[in-house]
Amino acid sequence: MNTDIDSSTNKSKTTMVIFGGTGDLTHRKLIPALYQLHINGFLPEDFTAISIGRRDKTTEEYREDLLSSIKRFSSRNFEEESFESFSKMITYYRLNFEDQSDYEDLRRELESRDKEGVRDSYMFYLAVSPSYFSEIVLNLKASGIREKDSLWQRLVIEKPFGQDLESAIRLNDSISSVFDEKDIYRIDHYVAKEMIQNINMLRFQNAIFGSIWNKDHISNVQITVLEKEGVGTRGGYYDGTGALRDMVQNHLLQLLAITAMEPPVSLDTDDVRNEKVKVFSSLKPFTGEHLDEKLILGQYRGYQDEEKVDPDSGTETLVATKVYIENERWEGVPFYLLTGKGLKNKTAQITIEFKQSNRYNYGKVSEPNILEIKIQPDEGITLHLNIKEPGVVDKIAMVEMDYCQSCLYLFNSPDSYEKLLLDALNGDSTLFTRWDELQLTWKYVDSILEKVNESRKSMLKAYEVGSNGPEDLSSFIDSGANHWWYLNREY
Amino acid sequence: MNTDIDSSTNKSKTTMVIFGGTGDLTHRKLIPALYQLHINGFLPEDFTAISIGRRDKTTEEYREDLLSSIKRFSSRNFEEESFESFSKMITYYRLNFEDQSDYEDLRRELESRDKEGVRDSYMFYLAVSPSYFSEIVLNLKASGIREKDSLWQRLVIEKPFGQDLESAIRLNDSISSVFDEKDIYRIDHYVAKEMIQNINMLRFQNAIFGSIWNKDHISNVQITVLEKEGVGTRGGYYDGTGALRDMVQNHLLQLLAITAMEPPVSLDTDDVRNEKVKVFSSLKPFTGEHLDEKLILGQYRGYQDEEKVDPDSGTETLVATKVYIENERWEGVPFYLLTGKGLKNKTAQITIEFKQSNRYNYGKVSEPNILEIKIQPDEGITLHLNIKEPGVVDKIAMVEMDYCQSCLYLFNSPDSYEKLLLDALNGDSTLFTRWDELQLTWKYVDSILEKVNESRKSMLKAYEVGSNGPEDLSSFIDSGANHWWYLNREY
Repeated sequence: MNTDIDSSTNKSKTTMVIFGGTGDLTHRKLIPALYQLHINGFLPEDFTAISIGRRDKTTEEYREDLLSSIKRFSSRNFEEESFESFSKMITYYRLNFEDQSDYEDLRRELESRDKEGVRDSYMFYLAVSPSYFSEIVLNLKASGIREKDSLWQRLVIEKPFGQDLESAIRLNDSISSVFDEKDIYRIDHYVAKEMIQNINMLRFQNAIFGSIWNKDHISNVQITVLEKEGVGTRGGYYDGTGALRDMVQNHLLQLLAITAMEPPVSLDTDDVRNEKVKVFSSLKPFTGEHLDEKLILGQYRGYQDEEKVDPDSGTETLVATKVYIENERWEGVPFYLLTGKGLKNKTAQITIEFKQSNRYNYGKVSEPNILEIKIQPDEGITLHLNIKEPGVVDKIAMVEMDYCQSCLYLFNSPDSYEKLLLDALNGDSTLFTRWDELQLTWKYVDSILEKVNESRKSMLKAYEVGSNGPEDLSSFIDSGANHWWYLNREY
Repeated sequence: MNTDIDSSTNKSKTTMVIFGGTGDLTHRKLIPALYQLHINGFLPEDFTAISIGRRDKTTEEYREDLLSSIKRFSSRNFEEESFESFSKMITYYRLNFEDQSDYEDLRRELESRDKEGVRDSYMFYLAVSPSYFSEIVLNLKASGIREKDSLWQRLVIEKPFGQDLESAIRLNDSISSVFDEKDIYRIDHYVAKEMIQNINMLRFQNAIFGSIWNKDHISNVQITVLEKEGVGTRGGYYDGTGALRDMVQNHLLQLLAITAMEPPVSLDTDDVRNEKVKVFSSLKPFTGEHLDEKLILGQYRGYQDEEKVDPDSGTETLVATKVYIENERWEGVPFYLLTGKGLKNKTAQITIEFKQSNRYNYGKVSEPNILEIKIQPDEGITLHLNIKEPGVVDKIAMVEMDYCQSCLYLFNSPDSYEKLLLDALNGDSTLFTRWDELQLTWKYVDSILEKVNESRKSMLKAYEVGSNGPEDLSSFIDSGANHWWYLNREY
């Protein structure tokens, strides 16, 4: 919740430079998000965007592409007039990422847009393959763009940030030579999902949850991010990556930290990030003992036949792991992380299972209270309660109390990218990943990969596409926990 | 949850003797409840009922009355065949409550129904004006009915049980000379309402509530029983009684005890009653200081013109009072009791207001969490939560999570009397009021009446029929509590 408003100058303009302007992410996410921010009046004064691609294309042609992208991917109704004013803000610019002189041309292009007495701000957005990350950033320096007088210059960088700790450090060294840490915005779009942002409010603004959010009352936490689709056209990237790197290192561990962190001193960026770092620092080290009790790797049948996938691939398309946080609050509480592709349902949710209360005997054991935080596709909160089943005989029944955000705020929930772009434009990096968070999560995932790589092939369980994952999953939950709650629910 | 099943004899029959068989309660409540128990197969083996009235009426005629009562007052669909078999169980019997020889005839009638080798059980149900309670019970003894060899004989007695402690003691002395305490079933039909029975499960089978059900987490409790109707035809009785005696002494204090009691050792009758008695014993004595801060009496405009009401009546038709329980769990937590007639809504609910949690500043103060236990007309549980309002700007919003029992179990909730009759037939007196409970609640209400009677007329606030009560009510809530939640809700 930091914002920077400069009061030293009266006039300012902001330029967003999108590297990867013709790519999938730009068309599906960035452009619809910018368009929505424009409609809602959230874009800064005198905002323009330069969309950079390698292809020859006129701005006219590019704007036509934008029109069809917005019509296809924007969640709200299309408004002709808003699109007219929006598309005028955006120009297409051809640049070869590997050609230094092209960056110098870009600098001149930016200079040509300078206005007398108007301060400039620049947001460089890397929506490109990670292999270009370093090169683009270094060229921003070499071309002199970084030296342009500006109110601010920020770098927004998409995942993956490295393939392991070592490559992440290399990448970070490279971009850190050009941007200060405070100006680097590493995206994890899961963190910006509405219901994830809601967790702070749920925990800290509701007295009933604040006092039971600990090992005394919670038996286990289940973080599940399930996908129906397989790797699709991303086989080339995915086969060298796998679910641990692609999902656990970033999204799932971020959700874990947000769920588990201590109440921060304030909601200021570094106070929040410091608490997340404390969680990552307290993760119980992953050792190789009893590997099968704390890790399951799966691969959906048919994965090896996917485009650009090694026909003998040992890459995991599903991972389930049990994580412990060694601190006062969470000692002994397992956090089950589960993510995978090619499954029965597309769903993401955090399930808090409370300890059971069976003070009296009503003929059957009470179910534990469950708090479900539904992230997608539906947004909402569900609480499982034990009640007396109406009737003259005392019987216990489990019912659900529901807050359905999707029902109440139909179409109102913004896409993650709206929030992330707005925050980056406003200089609020709370929802972005700080370098020490990245280091610690890579270190943790590396320690898993190290054990896995010794016995990857023998560990891998096959599962059917459209199933609930490998059968071994069901016995993976401790006897202390009751269910994989994701299995209980019809989505 | 006690039940008595006699294994010493193979055959038994049960006779229910209803005094007041032509009265309103019998037709509206008892008969529909018995009919429903019959349909559901809950009535004991060889069950018959003798319905006693003062009027001349044949059993044929009486059964026709039953038919129309059931059609009118039963909540379920009418079934011709079930009614046939049901009505055959019931005979009408004429008796003058004041004529001792009539009771001897009744004894002979009961003897004539004896069957060789079949043990008898008798449930005497007093659905008559309280002025007959003593007389009927004493005549059960004088006539020799009490000496009839029986498996059991029980007395079920409707409210009011006395008009103050003194008269309650007199009445109790009288019936105690005929029945043992364990065989006296004093009805408080509120206690048998589905959602009140639910409170035990809610508190003790849901870990999330068990640990926050105390002064550390709860700021206040509001017990409201509101009626739309005025006194109607009951002016004669009501004008000598008032809301304190008619509602607070029994229903509201019972709801208070159930909400506040410590977890009982078991759910056995006396374990539960012992805990309720502990609550009544811990009520902070009601003194006359700052009377207006802890008591409001109201009378709806037009009450004095009601049939059989004193035109200069000072009887309260509404009472709001603040009660404290002086024990470890509830020290300092106000329990607000509110009940009245001629109000805007007909509703009964218990509202638990938790302490506020405003750890972080989201631009406005969070509302406290509220747990609403809805007793009637709708049954259900609602929990008020603070969440993040969907959108790119952090805003807090209050939403409700709902468990709507009325929606889920449409028509399934039995009437209180089904439960109470079944329990009395089964020898389970958990939901009935023990003598020491009555003594303590009368003692408490007497201490209020004593203070009130000195200044009754000056205390009485007039309020409009169909309103939310006298205006002074709104300032009656402490600054610690936020609202009269009943005012916030559109029923």
